[in-house]
Amino acid sequence: VLNRVSQPQRKEPTVAELTKSLIAGDRAALARAMTWAESTRPEVTQRFREVLDRLPRPTSPSIRLGVSGTPGVGKSTFIEAFGQSLLGSGFRLAVLAIDPSSLASRGSILGDKTRMEKLSRDERAFVRPSPSRGFLGGTHARTFDLIELCERVGFDAIIVETVGVGQSEVAIRDLVDVVLLLLQPSSGDELQGIKRGVVEIADWILINKADGDRVAAAEATRMEYESAVSLFDRSVQVEKLSALDPKQVTAFWARVKDGLEKKRKTERWLGQRRQQVESWLQSQVSVALIEKYLHSAEGQDKIRSMALKLEVDASGTFDMTRGRREIEDFTRG
Amino acid sequence: VLNRVSQPQRKEPTVAELTKSLIAGDRAALARAMTWAESTRPEVTQRFREVLDRLPRPTSPSIRLGVSGTPGVGKSTFIEAFGQSLLGSGFRLAVLAIDPSSLASRGSILGDKTRMEKLSRDERAFVRPSPSRGFLGGTHARTFDLIELCERVGFDAIIVETVGVGQSEVAIRDLVDVVLLLLQPSSGDELQGIKRGVVEIADWILINKADGDRVAAAEATRMEYESAVSLFDRSVQVEKLSALDPKQVTAFWARVKDGLEKKRKTERWLGQRRQQVESWLQSQVSVALIEKYLHSAEGQDKIRSMALKLEVDASGTFDMTRGRREIEDFTRG
Repeated sequence: VLNRVSQPQRKEPTVAELTKSLIAGDRAALARAMTWAESTRPEVTQRFREVLDRLPRPTSPSIRLGVSGTPGVGKSTFIEAFGQSLLGSGFRLAVLAIDPSSLASRGSILGDKTRMEKLSRDERAFVRPSPSRGFLGGTHARTFDLIELCERVGFDAIIVETVGVGQSEVAIRDLVDVVLLLLQPSSGDELQGIKRGVVEIADWILINKADGDRVAAAEATRMEYESAVSLFDRSVQVEKLSALDPKQVTAFWARVKDGLEKKRKTERWLGQRRQQVESWLQSQVSVALIEKYLHSAEGQDKIRSMALKLEVDASGTFDMTRGRREIEDFTRG
Repeated sequence: VLNRVSQPQRKEPTVAELTKSLIAGDRAALARAMTWAESTRPEVTQRFREVLDRLPRPTSPSIRLGVSGTPGVGKSTFIEAFGQSLLGSGFRLAVLAIDPSSLASRGSILGDKTRMEKLSRDERAFVRPSPSRGFLGGTHARTFDLIELCERVGFDAIIVETVGVGQSEVAIRDLVDVVLLLLQPSSGDELQGIKRGVVEIADWILINKADGDRVAAAEATRMEYESAVSLFDRSVQVEKLSALDPKQVTAFWARVKDGLEKKRKTERWLGQRRQQVESWLQSQVSVALIEKYLHSAEGQDKIRSMALKLEVDASGTFDMTRGRREIEDFTRG
C-alpha cells in the first residue's frame, strides 16, 4: 500500500459538455445526467437543472405510461415484452423505476441483474434501474425531472415502474397519461396488498400469469376486480394476460395505444398534463422548502440544538410539549 | 328524500372531555384521538396535540417493535400470535399500522375485516388498522404521535406494522427499538421486493411459513439470508418460524424480550431513543414547513397562479426553466 499509484480521477463533465453528449445520443451521458438529477448535493442537482434547461423541448407529444404492482407479480417480464411491442410501433422507450425503498442504500440484495435484459441491450431503449432516493416528496419531483430529460433527448415513450404498494402508486397518476396495475391470479393473501387507493388510480388492471393451470384462477380474479371497479365512477378496463406470450402483449399494447389516441383527440389528455404541472409545482416547492429550511447547514444546526434541549428521560420519552414549542419557533423564525 | 329527518350530529368532545375519557381508559376515545391526530385539518391536529400534552408521560419504558414485510408474507397472522405472547407476559399492547398507500382513500378493497381478530377483541390490546394518510413525511411524524398517545394512556408495548417495500420500512427504524422483518420461503420472485435498505434496518429476519412442506424451503431461505447479512457490520438474527405454531412464536418472543432487556442494560437503547428525537424533530419541522408555506390558503393560491403562468403546449410539456424560476421566487419570498 506504500507506493500506491494514485488513480486518475474520472473527470466530471461540465454542463456544456454533458449537454453536448446528450444531444449526440450518448447513453453514458444519459446515465450520468440521471445520477446528477438524483444527487443529494444541491450543487449537483443545480447542474442537472442547467443541463435540462439547455436541452430542446420535444416538439411532438410523448406517451407516458405507469406500470405498478407488488413484488413478484411479473412487472419486469411484462415490461420486457410490452417494451418490445412499443419498439415495434417505432417508439423509442425509456423505462424509469420509482423505488422508494432505496433510501438507505441502493439495489436489491439478490439478483437484479437479469431485469429486462433484452430491452437493456436494445439501442432504441434505455432502462434506468431503481435509483431514486425517495424522501419527503423528492421521489416525485425527481422522477418528473427524469421523464423530462428522457423526452428532451428523444425518447417518445416513457414507462414509469413502481415497485409496490406505497405512496409511489398514488403519486404515479400525477406523472403519467395511463396507469397499468398488474395483479396475479389471487390466492386471497395477495389481495391484502392491493389497496383501494391503488386500484382507484388504475386505467387498466391486468391479471398477469394467465398461463398454464392458472388461466381459470386468472379469469376468476379478473371477474372479481371487474365487479369491484364497476362501483367506481370512472372507467377501468380489467383484462387477464400472460406476459410470456408476445402475441397477447402486442394485442394489449394495440388497445392501450388506441385508447391513448382517442383520449388525445378529446383534449382530456392535455387537461391531465395541465393538472400535472400543479402537482409538479407542489412537489418541487416541497423539496425546495425542505432544502432551504431543513437540509441547509443552518437548518441542521437548529435541529441539533433543539434535540439537545429535549432530554430523553429514563422512561425513554421526552417533553413533546416543549418540542412542539421549539418547532413553532423554528417555523416562525 | 323530501321530509328527511335531520340526523342528530354526534357531537365532537372538547379537548378536556376527550382527555378525561382517555385517562378513564375509554377505547372509543382512543380511536377518536387517533382520528384527530390523522386529520388533514390543522385545527383538528392542534386539538390532538393539546390532548397529548395533557396526558401524563409514562413513568417506565415501553417496548416499541416494528414488524415489516411485503403483502402476503403473513404479518397479520404473525402479529396475532406474537401479540398473544406479549399479553401473556403482562404487557398491554397497541398495534399501529403505517400504510402509505391509503392516501386516496382508506382500507383495502377486499377482506380486511378478519385481521387480528383475537387481538382486536382483547381488552388488553388495541388494534388500529391502517389509517395514516402518508404524504411528505407526515406518516412518520403522525405515527410517532400515535405511539406517544398509546404510551400515555397506558400501553407499554407498541407494534408498528408496515405493509411493504417502501419508505415506511426505512422510516420505521426511527420509530422503534427493534425491527422484525418477515419473509417467506423464497421462490426467487419475492426476493426482488426485498431491498438491501430494508434488510439493513432489520434486527431480526424471520422466515415465516416454515410449516408443512415448506420447512426445507424456509431453511434454505434462512441460510441464504444468514450468509447475506454476515456481510453487514451489525448483528442481525435470522430465524425461520411458523406463525401458526403458538409455541414457536412464544419462544421467539422470549428471545426478542431477552435481547431487549440486555440492550437496555447497556444504555444503547436510550442512545437510540435520543437519536429518534432528532428524527422526530426533522419530520415535525417538515410537516410544519409544508403546512405553513404550501398547504396554507396563501400557499395554494400561489401554486395555482404559478401553474396558470406555465402553459402546457401541444407537445404536452411546459417551460420548466420558467417553472423553476417561479419556485425560486416562491421560496425566497
